[in-house]
Amino acid sequence: MTKQQLFEQIIKKRSFLCVGLDTDIEKIPDYLTDNEDPIYTFNKAIIDATAPYCIAYKPNVAFYESAGIEGWLSLQKTVAYIKQRHPQLFIIADAKRGDIANTSEMYARTFFDGMKVDALTVAPYMGEDSVKPFLLYPESWVILLALTSNKGSNDFQQTENKNGERLFEQVLRVSQTWASDEQMMYVVGATHGTLLQDVRKIVPNHFLLVPGVGTQGGSLEDVCRYGMNKQCGLIVNASRSIIYADHTESFAEAAAEEAKKLQQEMNLLMDKYL
Amino acid sequence: MTKQQLFEQIIKKRSFLCVGLDTDIEKIPDYLTDNEDPIYTFNKAIIDATAPYCIAYKPNVAFYESAGIEGWLSLQKTVAYIKQRHPQLFIIADAKRGDIANTSEMYARTFFDGMKVDALTVAPYMGEDSVKPFLLYPESWVILLALTSNKGSNDFQQTENKNGERLFEQVLRVSQTWASDEQMMYVVGATHGTLLQDVRKIVPNHFLLVPGVGTQGGSLEDVCRYGMNKQCGLIVNASRSIIYADHTESFAEAAAEEAKKLQQEMNLLMDKYL
Repeated sequence: MTKQQLFEQIIKKRSFLCVGLDTDIEKIPDYLTDNEDPIYTFNKAIIDATAPYCIAYKPNVAFYESAGIEGWLSLQKTVAYIKQRHPQLFIIADAKRGDIANTSEMYARTFFDGMKVDALTVAPYMGEDSVKPFLLYPESWVILLALTSNKGSNDFQQTENKNGERLFEQVLRVSQTWASDEQMMYVVGATHGTLLQDVRKIVPNHFLLVPGVGTQGGSLEDVCRYGMNKQCGLIVNASRSIIYADHTESFAEAAAEEAKKLQQEMNLLMDKYL
Repeated sequence: MTKQQLFEQIIKKRSFLCVGLDTDIEKIPDYLTDNEDPIYTFNKAIIDATAPYCIAYKPNVAFYESAGIEGWLSLQKTVAYIKQRHPQLFIIADAKRGDIANTSEMYARTFFDGMKVDALTVAPYMGEDSVKPFLLYPESWVILLALTSNKGSNDFQQTENKNGERLFEQVLRVSQTWASDEQMMYVVGATHGTLLQDVRKIVPNHFLLVPGVGTQGGSLEDVCRYGMNKQCGLIVNASRSIIYADHTESFAEAAAEEAKKLQQEMNLLMDKYL
């Protein structure tokens, strides 16, 4: 999916919501666990219920990996289901991979060749040759970690170098030479508020994947005030606050309700800031 | 396995070699591909042939993941095989994981609870709360990326902050407050030669996992000269130069030969530097 196509979806749906599929067998409704594949069954119901209100899904790979072979099967089936039933939706594998070149090639093969997701989150610590193999798939996106939503983002990402540039700013600046805004996005946490202004000074045109709204407490209004650009430029993710809104047989309806609330908020914010 | 037990193995075998299991279906001998699980068959032969000369194995998770479900099965079987046949050998899952806390918990579950490896490589970019969940398994090791062996390690890891400290040095210093040298090791590439001296100024007692000897061209003598401490403190990895030493039916013997050469070199270097 191109940047323009993504923007068109956002305009059409009046939403830039991504639903995070952090599906945990211990948190889904009990009655589902009798199913052959409870994770997949849960995901299908969540996807069908929330699809009208979002433009992307982000399976969090750790949650599937932790269930071993069965988990990987659930993940593959989930991705295939989205592609088949909701082909206009953008699929992000949130895996935060990154390794020396010949190993990153293997990770790229897994997600872009095998699973055929649209985008993969990648860690920048190992530098250019660890990221480049992911860019060999011209129709797929790399979403590079810049300023993450967690507390630990203060440990290294905000350290100033001797030129007064913080690490996340250096990552944004340097990585722009690796690929254009047609193939790279950045993870910037909603929990950082005004820091989004500093991000936009370096990458005015890129899409940002913004986690941290919802359970983690980031403000959607601040994200839009400081982060929205002319092509929206935002994919805002919420996971737990949507998919675990309810633990009864009404879980999918409750998830839809939460997604709809966010979409309505986004609709108003697009009027205000786009 | 404790630090002391690891050191005892090193003394006993006169080796601090780790064999990297970067097993690629496209690189193993053709005749093996008729097997039900060629990757596992290859690994078993490599393991049995090289076990006398090494103290650790490091499956590179990307290579297994790229083969999908079958790859994960091969990985699980390989780890189980090492644990059963060679229980004194240290097993490192090289996966370079790291995410926000509740997600890192899932990755920790995958590798420490599910697969029961001894150690996992972890990326530091997201800071303390992304690493801490891996430390909740007191018998398992975190091997944190500090200064990697690839060219891209120059992009961010060697950037000086305003206090004149390079990022890899900051990672070493700060992460020492998260766990002791009984639970944490660091990845430091053999390709950096004298920089190992700078690493040792900050972490004199920790074990280092050192990739980059062999195909990547790092010097084993330099690694020992600048990096060895009183408990050896080194696990030196070679992958491709050992496991792909030969592509005929003699691949396992050839791998053993390469591993033996490195062990003999290590034996002499232990005389010289330990």
